[in-house]
Amino acid sequence: MHENTLLAFIAEQVKQLPPGVLVGPGDDCAVLEASAAVMLLTTDQLIELRHFVLAGTGPIGPTGGTASSGKARSARAGQLTLEQIARKAVARSVSDIAAMGGLPRWSLGTGALPRGMSDDHARTLTAAMHHWARHFGCPMVGGDLATIDGPMVLTVAVGGVPHARRGPVLRSGARPGDVLYVTGALGGSLASGRHASFEPRIAEAHALCTLLGLALHAMMDLSDGLGLDAHRMAKASGVTIELDSAALPIHADVPPSTSPSQDRWRAALGDGEDYELLIAIDPTHPVPALCPATNTPLTRVGRVRAAGDSNASGNRKAARAGTCTVLTPDGTLDASTMGWEHH
Amino acid sequence: MHENTLLAFIAEQVKQLPPGVLVGPGDDCAVLEASAAVMLLTTDQLIELRHFVLAGTGPIGPTGGTASSGKARSARAGQLTLEQIARKAVARSVSDIAAMGGLPRWSLGTGALPRGMSDDHARTLTAAMHHWARHFGCPMVGGDLATIDGPMVLTVAVGGVPHARRGPVLRSGARPGDVLYVTGALGGSLASGRHASFEPRIAEAHALCTLLGLALHAMMDLSDGLGLDAHRMAKASGVTIELDSAALPIHADVPPSTSPSQDRWRAALGDGEDYELLIAIDPTHPVPALCPATNTPLTRVGRVRAAGDSNASGNRKAARAGTCTVLTPDGTLDASTMGWEHH
Repeated sequence: MHENTLLAFIAEQVKQLPPGVLVGPGDDCAVLEASAAVMLLTTDQLIELRHFVLAGTGPIGPTGGTASSGKARSARAGQLTLEQIARKAVARSVSDIAAMGGLPRWSLGTGALPRGMSDDHARTLTAAMHHWARHFGCPMVGGDLATIDGPMVLTVAVGGVPHARRGPVLRSGARPGDVLYVTGALGGSLASGRHASFEPRIAEAHALCTLLGLALHAMMDLSDGLGLDAHRMAKASGVTIELDSAALPIHADVPPSTSPSQDRWRAALGDGEDYELLIAIDPTHPVPALCPATNTPLTRVGRVRAAGDSNASGNRKAARAGTCTVLTPDGTLDASTMGWEHH
Repeated sequence: MHENTLLAFIAEQVKQLPPGVLVGPGDDCAVLEASAAVMLLTTDQLIELRHFVLAGTGPIGPTGGTASSGKARSARAGQLTLEQIARKAVARSVSDIAAMGGLPRWSLGTGALPRGMSDDHARTLTAAMHHWARHFGCPMVGGDLATIDGPMVLTVAVGGVPHARRGPVLRSGARPGDVLYVTGALGGSLASGRHASFEPRIAEAHALCTLLGLALHAMMDLSDGLGLDAHRMAKASGVTIELDSAALPIHADVPPSTSPSQDRWRAALGDGEDYELLIAIDPTHPVPALCPATNTPLTRVGRVRAAGDSNASGNRKAARAGTCTVLTPDGTLDASTMGWEHH
């Protein structure tokens, strides 16, 4: 497809510049007013065959292309429409901004589009990326499109502002004694297709910053499964984390267990792609059962301990700094083995 | 390669956070102090087989991979080492910041790395991206690495600040009567390998902003060839542009003409990948022969006219707004046909 045609189409998408955007797509750079003294920045990529397979029966372009004929080589890849791919590419980065307690403000998007992708498909994808970026509060102010002799790659960088009073909430702020909460329910995201339609927890994170202030010690979003992600929070904070398998909020659509090795809580720990928030809170601060503003459930799932402390079952072995264990009916489990690692 | 291993390696690269970076890679977002009231944003991607072919005799990873065995399907692709690929991925976006008269401040980088790429190669590439980002003044504060079953894709977003006094220099500011200049020399960038080692004109652009102030009307960087890029400036500014083929600064290594259709000025107009600056300046303002500070040559290459004006050869036909013509010994030429269009 002709880049100029597509660029003209993109210019159409942003004819009305959002407030604070002085120059949008079309010049060498976008020009923005800095809307706060501190800014949040993140970027993420969505790769065909690695993170998704294009849904649809027909080939995506005249040449057929890798796109539709390729098979997912990764167990994580699900079948997605162009609309869903665009949404997810934006939502994943937006979720990172939410995880800091921030509000998304602008985005930059690039697409490496398979050679032979039709103009119609390229337009659908581009329009959807712009739509969802606006929807999540971070209009796309610049980007680039080019052709790839291979799978599609979408990259979305998002800039945001931290909560004005609380400031950025890091994953490294968890302290011994903190209680751990998660928003929403966990597990079954891929099987249900929720991984393509999740709501980044911007409103929840913002409301929690307002409600808890500095009692909100640490926060991160759950992309690779509570087990692995809690392990990362423990490592970043130099503490140990203990999760209770019986306390986990398991999504209603996770299928019933058929054997002990398929306990439903394992899905909540290891399925990944939940994009819920994991939150460490000062134990002296009251925590509501529902997030203010959105009524998303808040569930207490564990606690933070100092390295070297005995854990709840008196097991000192697992108390190294940077570890996360799960207390289960059958004993304790190393949580770092329970999520998805990117390869 | 294991993402955790590579992330740990990346953390090593940024152990010492540059000033203004409150949180670097490793959390959900980077956190930066906003260093000016207005910021510049750009992003660009470098795609294997489309923009480059990996140099080297051996396969890049255990599987051989698309990388080393693939052939360039694009005439623009040149053989590059990992070090050169990393440099170019950063330098292209940095050149966009220079084109606005700005200074680069931070960057975000992502890599879709071919499955089977060795840990050593991934480390070389990542370290080089960080090195060059620091070198150009925009340390990499965040990013993502993932595996692709196909060609390598590097995406680099760069944020910068405009010149404090002049503000951002747009490509849309050219006015009838302006004189047009370019920095350096044009042509032969691909054949000479200069496309992999060019110096983004940050210092030149900054010095010109200081020297010329508001007499500097418009600026852009030349990525697709002076012909096509000047056409874009004409379009953005709603003017017509006239270039003089005899005035163009042609790079010394452009080979001598062997026939009239291979006049050396054609290389300067159409080869592309020069990453020099095209500048429109108020005609009443004196312009030095060399850029202040760097002594990079400044060459007058043409002029800006109002739509509808007669051109220098009295030809009214080419005077539509948004056109760019080249005055040659053999008559006038539509410049928009003289550069590279991305497909």
